[in-house]
Formats: sequence, C-alpha cells, structure tokens
Amino acid sequence: MHQAKFDVLGIGNAIVDILASTTDAFLNEHGIAKGAMTLVDSFRAELLGKSMQGAVEASGGSAANTLVGISSLGGRAAFIGKVNDDRLGQVFMDDIRKAGVAFDGKPTAGKVATASSHILVSPDGQRSMNTFLGCASDLHAADMSQSLIADASILFIEGYLWDAPTTKAAIRTAIAHARAASRRVAFTLSDPFCVGRWREEFLELLKSDIDIVFANEEEAKSLFQTDSFNGALQAFRKWGKTAAITRSEKGAVIVGNGEVHIIDAEPVERVVDTTGAGDQFAAGFLFGTSRGLGLDVCGRLGGIAAAEVISHFGPRPQVSLKALAGKAGIL
Amino acid sequence: MHQAKFDVLGIGNAIVDILASTTDAFLNEHGIAKGAMTLVDSFRAELLGKSMQGAVEASGGSAANTLVGISSLGGRAAFIGKVNDDRLGQVFMDDIRKAGVAFDGKPTAGKVATASSHILVSPDGQRSMNTFLGCASDLHAADMSQSLIADASILFIEGYLWDAPTTKAAIRTAIAHARAASRRVAFTLSDPFCVGRWREEFLELLKSDIDIVFANEEEAKSLFQTDSFNGALQAFRKWGKTAAITRSEKGAVIVGNGEVHIIDAEPVERVVDTTGAGDQFAAGFLFGTSRGLGLDVCGRLGGIAAAEVISHFGPRPQVSLKALAGKAGIL
Repeated sequence: MHQAKFDVLGIGNAIVDILASTTDAFLNEHGIAKGAMTLVDSFRAELLGKSMQGAVEASGGSAANTLVGISSLGGRAAFIGKVNDDRLGQVFMDDIRKAGVAFDGKPTAGKVATASSHILVSPDGQRSMNTFLGCASDLHAADMSQSLIADASILFIEGYLWDAPTTKAAIRTAIAHARAASRRVAFTLSDPFCVGRWREEFLELLKSDIDIVFANEEEAKSLFQTDSFNGALQAFRKWGKTAAITRSEKGAVIVGNGEVHIIDAEPVERVVDTTGAGDQFAAGFLFGTSRGLGLDVCGRLGGIAAAEVISHFGPRPQVSLKALAGKAGIL
Repeated sequence: MHQAKFDVLGIGNAIVDILASTTDAFLNEHGIAKGAMTLVDSFRAELLGKSMQGAVEASGGSAANTLVGISSLGGRAAFIGKVNDDRLGQVFMDDIRKAGVAFDGKPTAGKVATASSHILVSPDGQRSMNTFLGCASDLHAADMSQSLIADASILFIEGYLWDAPTTKAAIRTAIAHARAASRRVAFTLSDPFCVGRWREEFLELLKSDIDIVFANEEEAKSLFQTDSFNGALQAFRKWGKTAAITRSEKGAVIVGNGEVHIIDAEPVERVVDTTGAGDQFAAGFLFGTSRGLGLDVCGRLGGIAAAEVISHFGPRPQVSLKALAGKAGIL
C-alpha cells in the first residue's frame, strides 16, 4: 500500500441543484408536493427549468456534498459520477472542481441528460425538490478507475446509487479495486426507503465488504428491523466494524474497535435548513478517520460540520470547516 | 451465599416530607428561596411547621423513595435509616411500612428530632424545599445489621449520607457486611454538590467497593472532571463495573459487562414535577438487576419508573409500577 494521493474518493449521483424562491401559488399551479422530494422525468424537469426564474445552479448530490465538506476541512477529495455532455454537465464539473474536489469523469454523449434537482424554497423555508436522475445513476464497471481508487485512503459509496444492476456491478468492481489496494470502504445507507428496498443486499454488503457505515436513526432501525435505537446499536456492535449513527438533535453515536462514543449535537443558534446534515456529518467523520484520528474526534468533526450546514440554506458549508474545527481545538 | 430475603436493602436519610400549597406572598414573608432546596435548623423547621396549614405528611428521602419504587414493582425492599422517638419519626415508620418497605429501625431517644423537609408548592408548580436533616444522617456502625445486609441481594447507599465521619464509618461497615455475604453494592452520587465535595473519596469507594453506580449527567461529569458526556462515559467504561447514567429528556446510558446501552426516555404526555426522577430510575434498574434481567431491560424499567413519577407531583409512584412494566411487556 503506497501513500494515498486522496483522503476520500466518493462515488455518487452527479446532480445539479437548481434553486429558486417560490410562492405557494407557483407550487399549486405546477402540482408540486410542498416539502417533499419527488422524482420527475426529463419532460417535467425541462418544464420546471423554464418556469423557474432567477434560479441558482450548483453541483449537488449526497456523496458530492460530502466530498465538498472534506475539501473544506482541508482534505483531498475526488469524485466518480456521471454527467452528460450538456450545459448542466458542464455546470456540475466546473462547480465541483471550484469546490476543490478532483473530478476526471468524461461527460457521456448519450441521449440521457445530466441529472438535476429543481428545488423550490417557500417563504416559510420549506424546500420542495423535483429530482430528475438522468444519466447520474448509469455507472459502469469501466467508470471505476482502478488507479484512482487505489490512490484514495477511503472509498465512499452513496447508497442512493444501489438500484440498477449495472450500477451495482460497477460498485462491486470499485469495492474489489479498493480491496486489492488494501483501502477502506465506507457506505452510506442514504435513505430509509433505500434500506427498506435493499435490506438483504445491504446486510450482505456490510458483512462482506464495508468497513465504515453511515446511517441515520431511521435507516439504522429499518436495516435491523428493530423499533428501538438501542436495538440497532447492539446490532452494529455485533457486526463489529465502524458505524456512525446520526440522531438529529440527539447527536450521534459512534461504534467501532470495541468502543462506543456518544457525541452530543453541537449547539446551533437557529436551525434554518437540515438538508445535507447527514452528508456533512459524513464529511467530518471521513476526513478525521482518513487522517487516523480517534473515533470520538471523528464524531466531533462530523458534528461540527453538520452544525454549520444546518444553520443556513443549502447542503454545503458556507465557511471554512477547517477554521471551525480549529476554533474547536481539533485541527 | 443463601437465597436472599430482600431484593434491595437501602441506607439513606429518613426524612418526612411536609407538603403544602403556598403563595408567593408566603414565600416572601418567610424569606424562602423559591424553587431551591435550603438546609434549615430545627428552630426554623418548627416555625415553618406551625405556619403551614393543611400540610400533607409522607415518608421521603432519596433512597427511601427508591425502595418504595422497588416495592411498587413487586420487589422486596428494606430500609436502614434513623428517626427519633417523636411524632414525625412515627409518621415516617408508619408511612414507609404502608408502602411495603421493611423498616426495623428502633427510634432513638436522643435530643435531635426526626428529619423533615417542608416543601411549599407555588401556583406555578415550583417547589421550595426547606430541609432539616435532624438525626437522619447520624448513623453508626451498630445500626448496620449484619444479618439484614446479608439477607439482601443488593446493598444500596445514598450518597447524600456521605458527610459525617461516624456515618462514613457506618457505611464502610455496611459494605464490609455485604462483601462478607457476597452481595452486590450499589451507590448513588446523589448530587453534583456531594460529588464536588467528596470526589476523591467517591472515586476511591468506586474503585474498592462499588459494583453499581447511579449518576446523572452533571454528577458524572463532575466526578471525572470532564466537560463532555462522552468523556464521563469513557471513564465509566474504563472503570469496568456497572454505571447507570441518567440524562433527563435524553434518557439514560447503561455501561457494564463490556456492554453499552442507550435507553431513550419514555414518552411523557406532560412533565409536571421532575422531583424523584433519579430515585425512581434507580428503583427500576435495581429491581431489574436484582432479578437477573439484562442491563438493557433494567434501563427500560428505570425509564418507565422515572416517566411515571415526573407526570405528577411528588417523588413516589402513584400507580403500580409493576402494572406499567407489564403493559410494556417487561414483567
């Protein structure tokens, strides 16, 4: 195992977030479910794009958000994802690179457009998301650069991707590359719905291939089909590898190496928008563990990153996480 | 080690609670600090007793409250404490026995009266306590019946008692009796102020003689002089024996046998009065562990007992805890 060039390489959905303020009248007119995430097709995505005025475009997606957080902590992050050779594809690439994340993917020339999420923010702060997955989840084994994966301390996989058979096969290839290079593999369960749909396969993956798992409380309970948090905690302890379980205002619990750490949530003056809290927790934790910090410190870094992102709109840090960690006496 | 006659034998302050409703005018007139616990002398206790009309008298004290909770769970509880041969001493003895707790102590004929706590409840629900410790903390080695201690699965000691040298010596005698009979010893830290005052001696006791310790979050942090909950948790794990740490609305964390359990607080419709929450948590936990239940189940029993007592005024259960535990599918 040679010295890694990157701390974390993430594989995830490459999605362009398109944000605009809205009114309830607009939501009603376009039949948009307020506060929900709805999957939409290309036709509807295009229609929404035309009706949303003054929208701000930025690279998004869960794992990509995490990588941007790692970069903000001073970490070296790289991304594998799929964009099309279209305008939004270019927006994604420019934006994630500007955020300090290496992205060498070649845009595909296929018919399926770059993924987008049209996000409408109501005056009361609620976000209504209309996500068109486009080509983002169409990953293939050939996209999984063996040398890039070998060059990162940790391979981080977004559970949302676990859907199409070709993408699953691509992820298994990526894991095999990481194993061959003696790298650690981290996985986020992403969503209780994902867990419900793929429980058996997720449990199988955990057993065979995952070293670090991220779950929020609902995902953890669903994974082990238990109705108590403690039930999920004991199951993760029995599993034996590293789990970071987030509990919103209750903070997080970290399990690993026979240790259990209860990390209280960092104080937040005002919670503005919880989008991206889990992604940023993962950023802090992954950065910490890639640098060999103790599990308790990794948990605190996760908490600091999550606290920053929920104090403003948007799923990415607005100030240097490295500076925040420094102020807390960690980095 | 023969079959124990009692599940838990508790040693604590034998205090008669004297409760009455009050007005802010009364508190002002008598110079009583609203919402606080103030230690008072016999003169002031007598004066307050004369001015409080329609007061209700009941046996109280932290360990005694715990024993009443154990009895309500169907457990066999006994008490060692000191009352005087006066009217309040008789009230204490009658009342605790009526609650199903064995109490064989002979009232002393000394000059120092039975302990009392004049508790004034304001219209806004705040409780102002005026505690006269009287003869309660004047325990001697001779009060520690060797046969009674040998006859209980667990010896439970109230940390509030750790003050006068004779009482400390008495507690050490009790612990020696328990050890000689191969019984377990449990100790509650009682109060952050106690911990601050006796930290070194408490740590010494834990190391040499305590099998089970109860602490709330503030007491735990003070004991190990750490400002994070996780710091205290790791210190208890390193200690290696059983600790039950209560965290108010955050529930409790149980450590022991290499296990860590996070027990969420039981849902409570309306928190009316948190007095006695810790005492009743200890009741549920001690009852469970005296019957050989798992640490997680003991924690849940503690949570159920605590939730009951904070939903009404007063530090003792108003309904059968055994029935509540049965409803939760535990007993």
